[in-house]
Amino acid sequence: MANVDVIVVGAGVSGLVTADRVRAAGRSVVVLEARDRVGGRTVTEAVPARGDGTEAPGTLDGLLVDSGAAWVAPDQTLLLAELARFGLKTTPQEGPGDALVSLRGRSRRYTGEARALDPVTTADVGQAMLRFSAAAEKVDVAAPWRGEAADRYDAQTFESWIRRTCLTSKGRDYFRLACEAVLATEPQNVSLLHVLFYARSGGGLLHLLTTGGGAQDARVVGGMQQVAERLAEGLGPWVRLQEPVTTILHDEDGVSVHSESGATTAQHVVVTVPPALASSIEYLPALPQDRTLLSQRMPHGSVVKCHAVYRRPFWHDEALSGEIASDQGPAKVVFDTSPPEGGYGVLTVLVEGEDAVRLGAMDPDKARTAVLRGLAAHLGPKAMDPVGYLAKDWTAEEWTRGCYGAHLPPGAWTQVGRALRTPVGRVHWAGTETAERWCGYVDGAIASGERAAAEVLAALG
Amino acid sequence: MANVDVIVVGAGVSGLVTADRVRAAGRSVVVLEARDRVGGRTVTEAVPARGDGTEAPGTLDGLLVDSGAAWVAPDQTLLLAELARFGLKTTPQEGPGDALVSLRGRSRRYTGEARALDPVTTADVGQAMLRFSAAAEKVDVAAPWRGEAADRYDAQTFESWIRRTCLTSKGRDYFRLACEAVLATEPQNVSLLHVLFYARSGGGLLHLLTTGGGAQDARVVGGMQQVAERLAEGLGPWVRLQEPVTTILHDEDGVSVHSESGATTAQHVVVTVPPALASSIEYLPALPQDRTLLSQRMPHGSVVKCHAVYRRPFWHDEALSGEIASDQGPAKVVFDTSPPEGGYGVLTVLVEGEDAVRLGAMDPDKARTAVLRGLAAHLGPKAMDPVGYLAKDWTAEEWTRGCYGAHLPPGAWTQVGRALRTPVGRVHWAGTETAERWCGYVDGAIASGERAAAEVLAALG
Repeated sequence: MANVDVIVVGAGVSGLVTADRVRAAGRSVVVLEARDRVGGRTVTEAVPARGDGTEAPGTLDGLLVDSGAAWVAPDQTLLLAELARFGLKTTPQEGPGDALVSLRGRSRRYTGEARALDPVTTADVGQAMLRFSAAAEKVDVAAPWRGEAADRYDAQTFESWIRRTCLTSKGRDYFRLACEAVLATEPQNVSLLHVLFYARSGGGLLHLLTTGGGAQDARVVGGMQQVAERLAEGLGPWVRLQEPVTTILHDEDGVSVHSESGATTAQHVVVTVPPALASSIEYLPALPQDRTLLSQRMPHGSVVKCHAVYRRPFWHDEALSGEIASDQGPAKVVFDTSPPEGGYGVLTVLVEGEDAVRLGAMDPDKARTAVLRGLAAHLGPKAMDPVGYLAKDWTAEEWTRGCYGAHLPPGAWTQVGRALRTPVGRVHWAGTETAERWCGYVDGAIASGERAAAEVLAALG
Repeated sequence: MANVDVIVVGAGVSGLVTADRVRAAGRSVVVLEARDRVGGRTVTEAVPARGDGTEAPGTLDGLLVDSGAAWVAPDQTLLLAELARFGLKTTPQEGPGDALVSLRGRSRRYTGEARALDPVTTADVGQAMLRFSAAAEKVDVAAPWRGEAADRYDAQTFESWIRRTCLTSKGRDYFRLACEAVLATEPQNVSLLHVLFYARSGGGLLHLLTTGGGAQDARVVGGMQQVAERLAEGLGPWVRLQEPVTTILHDEDGVSVHSESGATTAQHVVVTVPPALASSIEYLPALPQDRTLLSQRMPHGSVVKCHAVYRRPFWHDEALSGEIASDQGPAKVVFDTSPPEGGYGVLTVLVEGEDAVRLGAMDPDKARTAVLRGLAAHLGPKAMDPVGYLAKDWTAEEWTRGCYGAHLPPGAWTQVGRALRTPVGRVHWAGTETAERWCGYVDGAIASGERAAAEVLAALG
């Protein structure tokens, strides 16, 4: 089989960027991907017409939606550079009309800067956000386990912090919803240190929650998966699909990576799948104990990303933007992702955390009805009757097992966080989970690929 | 390949008990074990002479030590019944002499009932233990996610509870050491609900920490692994070693379990390895999402179990029992496990949690010196010169990846705990982690095997 300088495991954005940079430096590379497609957690898909099965199957003409990562922030410079390189355009997420926020059964409309929270809740969220930001300032994103406060932050859940810091029930609800929206898991599941790190890594918690100007500023016209597809086109036959890696042998002289079609040998291997999946690969010799422990302590969030497509964006008639934040699942986080050229009205529903686990256990028809009912509660009965529907449960994806990314429960960062990026001999690690900036986002995936490429290129000399 | 009624994955105590009970009911069974031995987390070994490499290799005549589970409690009725069935004897753990407790650099001796803590610390530990026990009373060991307080207990780390409840620094140290001794992980890594469950499952936190009359009451003469060996002898050729399972196909009609030598078919399969390892097996169709999440949220503790063997138990000269509890690693938890018939003096050092991770990263000679220095700090310089030494790092064991067992971080019990024992079609689950009583102990492993056997026998009709 092939003998190359570098083998990359995984053809998501981080793996393809690694390979792209290694090749640009004149080194040979092979990417081994388990799936029959590239893109990892980015995937752009057509929407089946009439998801209820009452009509013949088919897809809605020309309509593509992002069932995976979708948004671009103005300060995601690495992603913006990649989009520019491939001539990909973006379209702003924010459209006309009012957003809705619904807490404890009470729904309010708001526009732009105005917050829809009542004055008391606003004051409570404000004082808690100040404390959160002050604590986040102390976290070193390059080494969250460092610093005098790290142990204290890592000894508690984010939920413990919320209960101690917020003075009102709606204030607590706000931070719980924020945690679900950003990490796709509930605040009791995650270390306070991790939430502080994650927020700081992406420019602050408010920045992550913001649409215009923030992490949900714009979408890629034609879909985010194009980034991976263009990178893969450049790599040509060096990207090999449907090749799940089973074993990695590594010693002082090189590596041998085994997949169904045989062994590929190289000087270095870069594993770009998240730690929980990377541990399913057999390593000979075995990985050090701190790495084994880390892989047991980076569970994934849970997301079902749903798209409901309507003949037209009927919510515009009520001067609603289609953006919804609610404390009532399953439709807690909703965006209007209608195509910029007009036509269909598209609502993206991000079902997260426990809601996603519950939805994933349902019969697909019942799950669809539950999501549409959630939309109808805010937008009226027309929401019950889409012309197309698509749901992607990322936990059910064998080669991902949960989105948006992995999070660390209490104790893990300070005890075994050092193992996250530390190479084990000739085995290197990439993936958005290993990024210092925009950890968990496509931008972080690119950063991690560039860092891993630099690492192996330096080692190759 | 073979077609049987039941396939059992894993020849630890839980798997062998499952197979034993299934066969006793007249059904056919095959056990597939990855290792070249039976016993799982029980293993009885000879000790190499002069572990420092200065003499020719060899083992100390007739001396066997338990590098895995070792102790029996008087109320572990299932384990005691199994010992009686096989004619295995026990020997009391407690011997003559004083135990040592060392907190914050201050060492004290104590005997029997007397506590070695100063009056203020005793009062603090006492009031906190009362609160702990009252909370544990509310936990339903059959369903820890139930009950009004479950969500609250599961939203915080045990460390958060310690900081809130204990009034003195030594009181906090006591509970931290207790957590490490019982779960082999630090209190920030684990849900308060899990610690409450675990303590109640084994008859209370004090019971788990107690030697005479408690969880460390007695050892098995000749070693704990004999239980598995005798069970395996009864099963004969139906236990197949060195057969790691890679894939489990399952549908309404049956299961097909693939290992290197091919496929074995059956009506049911019982997977007895802990969830973090069970997720390395490929399931077709894939497991439900809650099970996937659970397997990402049950990390293992970290233990290096060390044995230092001396010509004679020299600490008896000072009227010391050899039992040590200290807040200074790596030798925080020490027991005298000298053979009851006399001769060699044997000290068992349980290096746990972060200390174990640190020890596992060291060169073996340096690790040995660090452990012996820890012993010498309490027992004098003679401890530096053993005639034999053996260390077992359970995190480095490919087919275990950490001991004593798995623990649940905050949020996991209440969100996905239901998936722990729930069969997925014809795929059933056993292992000490699934036990209601004595979860994490050999007794719990037996209980889980009996429960799983009853489950498949009922399904077989």
